[in-house]
Amino acid sequence: MRNRLKALGSALALVFLLCLAAQAADPLPSWNEGAAKASIINFVDKVTRADSRDFVPAPRRIAAFDNDGTLWIEQPMYVQFAFVLDRVKALAPQHPEWKDQQPFKAALERDLKALGGFGARGLVELTAAVSTGMTVSAYERMVEGWLRTARDPRFKRPYTVLVYQPMVELLAYLGANGFKTFIVSGGGIDFMRPWTKRVYGIPPEQVIGSSVEVTYELRDGVPVLMRLPKIRFIDDKAGKPVGIQSHIGRRPIAAFGNSDGDLEMLQWTTSGKGARFGLIVHHDDAKREFAYDRDSAFGKLDKALDAAKAKGWTIVNIKEDWKTVFPPEQGGAVR
Amino acid sequence: MRNRLKALGSALALVFLLCLAAQAADPLPSWNEGAAKASIINFVDKVTRADSRDFVPAPRRIAAFDNDGTLWIEQPMYVQFAFVLDRVKALAPQHPEWKDQQPFKAALERDLKALGGFGARGLVELTAAVSTGMTVSAYERMVEGWLRTARDPRFKRPYTVLVYQPMVELLAYLGANGFKTFIVSGGGIDFMRPWTKRVYGIPPEQVIGSSVEVTYELRDGVPVLMRLPKIRFIDDKAGKPVGIQSHIGRRPIAAFGNSDGDLEMLQWTTSGKGARFGLIVHHDDAKREFAYDRDSAFGKLDKALDAAKAKGWTIVNIKEDWKTVFPPEQGGAVR
Repeated sequence: MRNRLKALGSALALVFLLCLAAQAADPLPSWNEGAAKASIINFVDKVTRADSRDFVPAPRRIAAFDNDGTLWIEQPMYVQFAFVLDRVKALAPQHPEWKDQQPFKAALERDLKALGGFGARGLVELTAAVSTGMTVSAYERMVEGWLRTARDPRFKRPYTVLVYQPMVELLAYLGANGFKTFIVSGGGIDFMRPWTKRVYGIPPEQVIGSSVEVTYELRDGVPVLMRLPKIRFIDDKAGKPVGIQSHIGRRPIAAFGNSDGDLEMLQWTTSGKGARFGLIVHHDDAKREFAYDRDSAFGKLDKALDAAKAKGWTIVNIKEDWKTVFPPEQGGAVR
Repeated sequence: MRNRLKALGSALALVFLLCLAAQAADPLPSWNEGAAKASIINFVDKVTRADSRDFVPAPRRIAAFDNDGTLWIEQPMYVQFAFVLDRVKALAPQHPEWKDQQPFKAALERDLKALGGFGARGLVELTAAVSTGMTVSAYERMVEGWLRTARDPRFKRPYTVLVYQPMVELLAYLGANGFKTFIVSGGGIDFMRPWTKRVYGIPPEQVIGSSVEVTYELRDGVPVLMRLPKIRFIDDKAGKPVGIQSHIGRRPIAAFGNSDGDLEMLQWTTSGKGARFGLIVHHDDAKREFAYDRDSAFGKLDKALDAAKAKGWTIVNIKEDWKTVFPPEQGGAVR
């Protein structure tokens, strides 16, 4: 009996070790086996294998990722909107005119439907009004301070842990395969840059987003970059390929999005020569996250869903394709 | 006697081998020993040695290089001006109004003094007028075609071999030490990107420059990026720190320039906290290249030369600091 138990123990230990090894070998452990996961691995394999006819040299392995709804949550509203609404509220006493003026009125009334309708432009307009007249560094500190204390209304966790674990694994997997990954978001470039390296492993120079005008000045002899209350660029819809050209100067070979704001980026990416990859995250998991698409105020996915079907882009259905949605809680530690 | 000769021969062979070894170990072989070379090596040593109190982690080792006059020649005029003047000449019959309109008048008359006076803005204005209404890809092909056939008027060689060998070595040296090197030029971003990887080892996404507006369109269902006849951004003087912020999102720790157009970039770079490095290339070698500074139409170096002295930036005097100026001719092979 004692020997049998010992043998069973050894066998179990072996199975456990084999499981660990299998897990270690799987670069995308939070993805369920299925067509979506297989399409990713197949694409990476064919562009990286030296003897593949679809081989792409490492410097041209450029991948573009939307942020809101693709890498982190965007419901009940874009995270940056939550930040901006707090600022609007704080500054409202000095701006009585906002009560009757859009998009401020919607912001003060927390009218999410209306705010969603204003889209990236509304976000950038509000940002330009409430977080300019300060240096870029002061703004970055303000964003970091806000992210430390702000909590998501549903999950009661910091926004920077409400990132999609399967997508974070995908970023790492692509990086390990010689890809350079870029964020290409309608959100503010300076709102993302302070934390994308820590949270996604993406350095500031690989972040593309909407922006306000910035000017270089000497203040008491000290050089500063001041944020001006004027929109410079809106990195959304047809702006995304333009932002990509401006920052990267070449066409990505893979693009990842989740809404109609990403349609042109996916069109542009997948219409280049050679092997190309397009992926749409479809939020259909109300239990673990949110379910929304064609009628959503934020992250509306309508035309891009039809295009994905027509063009053969990979559609990720969260409910069936993701084993887990968010990273495991680590004793409530804030990233 | 025979033995003595043999011994002498062996000794000479040894000295020769030692010289070769020393040269192989020298990361900057085209730089003469002196204060400029020592300051570069000292800076790189102190920010890369793990036990140094000035240590900077690799991701923050960002270095910014001007292009015209810092990495390649800019006399008798910016290379891009030579390109644009050819285009102006070709298109002039369709634009009789250019005869009386600046900067076209100066371009048609090849009035280099006047063109120099128009600076980066004049260059971008001319570029916007003569190389827009076409796709970005078509423009890049045009630039590459022109560079293949165009020859510098003095050296009769392609412009892409009239790069400064010591600076190309410096780029490689910084790269080998974990630096990410960026070009930050008043020249057109799309004029540089087609060849900077081949010539300097700098990929398109690390090139920052002046730009025209670009728009994303579907032409017969095919996505294209069109260049519009409108200036988007002038990456010169106070524009350089703004371009750096927009593209990189953090302050470089080292900057390299040669003219007053680089002054703000060097101010911004060197006024950050921690170890910083600024360098100005001073063209004082009329024999091997050109001698110009305070009164030059192109690459005027006046305020930045005074600032370099006041702030302790490294001044490179080509005559004494550079062993060679251009890469060795390789049987006339075009890079």
